Amino acid sequence: MKKEIKIGLFGFGSVGRGLYDVLGAVEGKDIVIKRICVRNLNKDRGVVADFTDQADDIFGDPEINMIVELIDDAEAAYTIVRRSLEAHLPVVSGNKKMLAYHLPELIELGRQTSTPFLYDASACGSIPVIRNLEEYYDNDLLVSVKGILNGSSNFVLSKIFNENMTYDAALRLAQELGFAESDPSLDFDGWDSLFKLVILTIHAFGIYVEPEKIFRYGISSMNEADIRFAAEKQRRIKLVGHVEKSDDGGVYLWVVPQLISRDKYIYSVEDEFNGVVIKGRYYYKQFMFGRGAGGHPTGAAVLSDITACKYDYRYEYKRMNSASPVHHTNDVVYRIYYRYRTEEDATLIRFTKIRERYTSPEWSYIVGDVNLADLVAVKEQLAGKEIFLAAYPWD
Amino acid sequence: MKKEIKIGLFGFGSVGRGLYDVLGAVEGKDIVIKRICVRNLNKDRGVVADFTDQADDIFGDPEINMIVELIDDAEAAYTIVRRSLEAHLPVVSGNKKMLAYHLPELIELGRQTSTPFLYDASACGSIPVIRNLEEYYDNDLLVSVKGILNGSSNFVLSKIFNENMTYDAALRLAQELGFAESDPSLDFDGWDSLFKLVILTIHAFGIYVEPEKIFRYGISSMNEADIRFAAEKQRRIKLVGHVEKSDDGGVYLWVVPQLISRDKYIYSVEDEFNGVVIKGRYYYKQFMFGRGAGGHPTGAAVLSDITACKYDYRYEYKRMNSASPVHHTNDVVYRIYYRYRTEEDATLIRFTKIRERYTSPEWSYIVGDVNLADLVAVKEQLAGKEIFLAAYPWD
Repeated sequence: MKKEIKIGLFGFGSVGRGLYDVLGAVEGKDIVIKRICVRNLNKDRGVVADFTDQADDIFGDPEINMIVELIDDAEAAYTIVRRSLEAHLPVVSGNKKMLAYHLPELIELGRQTSTPFLYDASACGSIPVIRNLEEYYDNDLLVSVKGILNGSSNFVLSKIFNENMTYDAALRLAQELGFAESDPSLDFDGWDSLFKLVILTIHAFGIYVEPEKIFRYGISSMNEADIRFAAEKQRRIKLVGHVEKSDDGGVYLWVVPQLISRDKYIYSVEDEFNGVVIKGRYYYKQFMFGRGAGGHPTGAAVLSDITACKYDYRYEYKRMNSASPVHHTNDVVYRIYYRYRTEEDATLIRFTKIRERYTSPEWSYIVGDVNLADLVAVKEQLAGKEIFLAAYPWD
Repeated sequence: MKKEIKIGLFGFGSVGRGLYDVLGAVEGKDIVIKRICVRNLNKDRGVVADFTDQADDIFGDPEINMIVELIDDAEAAYTIVRRSLEAHLPVVSGNKKMLAYHLPELIELGRQTSTPFLYDASACGSIPVIRNLEEYYDNDLLVSVKGILNGSSNFVLSKIFNENMTYDAALRLAQELGFAESDPSLDFDGWDSLFKLVILTIHAFGIYVEPEKIFRYGISSMNEADIRFAAEKQRRIKLVGHVEKSDDGGVYLWVVPQLISRDKYIYSVEDEFNGVVIKGRYYYKQFMFGRGAGGHPTGAAVLSDITACKYDYRYEYKRMNSASPVHHTNDVVYRIYYRYRTEEDATLIRFTKIRERYTSPEWSYIVGDVNLADLVAVKEQLAGKEIFLAAYPWD
């Protein structure tokens, strides 16, 4: 354990500021932010701290013994983490996009340089999901991890289903309250959930799957008809990140709106909250719930990573190093709800079995079974169309 | 990390058997139960394993490199854990009563002998509360831990409030289903919750409080009138273990039935489940939920402890070693509901303020404010009377 941590911080957005506030509230002063690197030095940050716009000022400071990276730009974040590990400086990262694309090589670099590298705060803000998967659930017993991983889209869905707001009004409200990311497609098209799912999958099942190989569908094209359909079936639509062992021992994962029934834990996860259900053989189910976003909760989560780093904690990646690694598969059949308008769009999706069919001049839908592999094959063609699809689980 | 774990197991009740089953389902065979010590060798256990009734057969076996203690008898469990630590054998314990009375000296012994000693499974079965408190929540930021820590009593309360069963019928059902401990007062008088609360408090706030110093009240004397009162107020009665920082920086804890309103997470924790809410400054609230009891979930939790032991994980007890330790206090005012029959019983409790009063020949109640210290002072006198009390929180 290091006696005193002097942090070189990159980024002072809402999470960076959150960390600053949280550290100010902690009694022991053995963790301090020594210097903060920001892009724009002229912006008034409202705090007295040692700012710089030169990364070299951080890496060149011999007193700084930990790097914390909380910036938006994934490529810049990648450079910072690499440079930290190469310099044997323990590093905490919060950039889920960067992690989702670069984790395997960064894990390897961390191992080669024996340098701690933590990022619990990147997935689900203040819910310690990674640490729990890493520490608590034994290898072979894990069945699935399923959760609401994005607060902004869940906020919008909550307003629609509980307060009968329209999609547009709910979206505006989310933006006004500052819940939405600067690029709304990150939240509403499922990218943010996808990045988190890729990270969680490494810790849950020990495999890395490139984001591009995963079926991802968001809620941007959802409309009144879909909301009505869900209400009729007494379900709510939730945007769910989902990874699960398949029957053949592989692992499939996808981000997709799901029609969730009342008796499910995540049915009741509302507003900007996140909720994750971890299912295991013997364990039955665990449910973890908390604020998934926001400067202070995420700042507090970053502080947990810093404290863990201080105590020389490292992820073990036990499952990645397992003697019998699992493989990624898309060969799994799921029931879905598919709403469309034109006959051309009706044929976009290959159903192995059609269970319900409704057609009208305004809108039409099919409830039927699809193979996830067939969805992956057409995922580019689904974008920007007047269609919507959602998983419609049997239970 | 040890290459292969050979366990000497004490006890083969439902949790011991659960561990046996779970281990059988795990692929890698680097954790095996070498020998099992039971009290009665003649009982048919239904499995083929190397049983003994002599502790020396375990401690004398040079191949055994970890002790797992899952027996009912607290004094015998204490002897086993001491002997393990003295022999520098890593030990996993599931006996909450033993831990609640002996933790400080066992922690010290573990430190002196540098021997891992884990017991996550003892509190809340399969919910990793201790590990989370220990690893994730920073010192000064924790405000409270509050939860339904006992599955059997919660099962009974669920049946009463959701299915209109009588207390007696619900209790019989719990016993038939095997949920209740052999001594029902452990569950229903709050002892089991109390033991777990004492353990959690060490990890949450770094102080050990003897069970006898803590106000503990159960649900055995609850009757129809109390159920009606709760329903009128649109609340449910839950048996809650609760530790919280007081305004003066102390920590108070108690186990008490609480009238819980609908918007609280633990309102919806039903049947034999446990649910724990961890509240922190900045974190807002975390909610963890899962099966708190049962052979398989608890067995899986014990396996997590074993795996952690294998990786040389130890609790850090950061807060116990803190430079500014907190103190135990009972000086906190709470609103309670107090139901009684005789005028003599009415005066048992010293109210600092009476807010509601109802009297009738059949039953009477007072809603008013009490100081927890005043409750502690009379706790012996409350037992066995025709009275019932429950905390009645403002929110």
